[in-house]
Amino acid sequence: MKTINLAEKLDQFTSHWDPHVIADYNENDVMVVRFQGEFPFHLHENTDDFFLVLHGEMVMDLENSAHTVRAGELFVVPKGVTHRPRATHECKVLLIEPKGEPNTGDAATAAPKPRI
Amino acid sequence: MKTINLAEKLDQFTSHWDPHVIADYNENDVMVVRFQGEFPFHLHENTDDFFLVLHGEMVMDLENSAHTVRAGELFVVPKGVTHRPRATHECKVLLIEPKGEPNTGDAATAAPKPRI
Repeated sequence: MKTINLAEKLDQFTSHWDPHVIADYNENDVMVVRFQGEFPFHLHENTDDFFLVLHGEMVMDLENSAHTVRAGELFVVPKGVTHRPRATHECKVLLIEPKGEPNTGDAATAAPKPRI
Repeated sequence: MKTINLAEKLDQFTSHWDPHVIADYNENDVMVVRFQGEFPFHLHENTDDFFLVLHGEMVMDLENSAHTVRAGELFVVPKGVTHRPRATHECKVLLIEPKGEPNTGDAATAAPKPRI
């Protein structure tokens, strides 16, 4: 049990689309991640996907709409909804997903989610 | 599905210790809340309790320690752990708890958690 500083955790890596676990909330991983460029379109069949922008801005593309999400804003993608985060400039995000959930929705292509 | 601005939601009320639901993440309420003063010591028997400070600073008192949590920092209280948030000056917090969980750990004294 300790206070966790998000900026200090983000300073521990520079890679993009590479979520790092910083805390646990029940059966979920609380992660920080740096976005830049376009992630593949994907969906999570059994879970919502929680994004809170900490720095910069991203766009959440859905199948028929695009949503800008800036620092201090959050976006929850409901389960089963196809989505693609993208960011022209680097964007720092707090991400929450259930433990074991592939960030791509597919274990074959998922990032490893190391703990820092 | 839309972008949710935390500051705009916080501007919709001024009361303290009065969490307002702004989004859903699976079976959880995502809330914003203003803290000032001392909350009662309490625990949640069946859930962790997620606090992310958005503005200002708070102290999370546990039974044998006290943890300062500033803007950009988070603290997760594990289930079953007695805790008390307090804030000398007003502090704005993102709070996540399972739907139906009393914020005091006791339905008899819990805040209503309106949706905004």
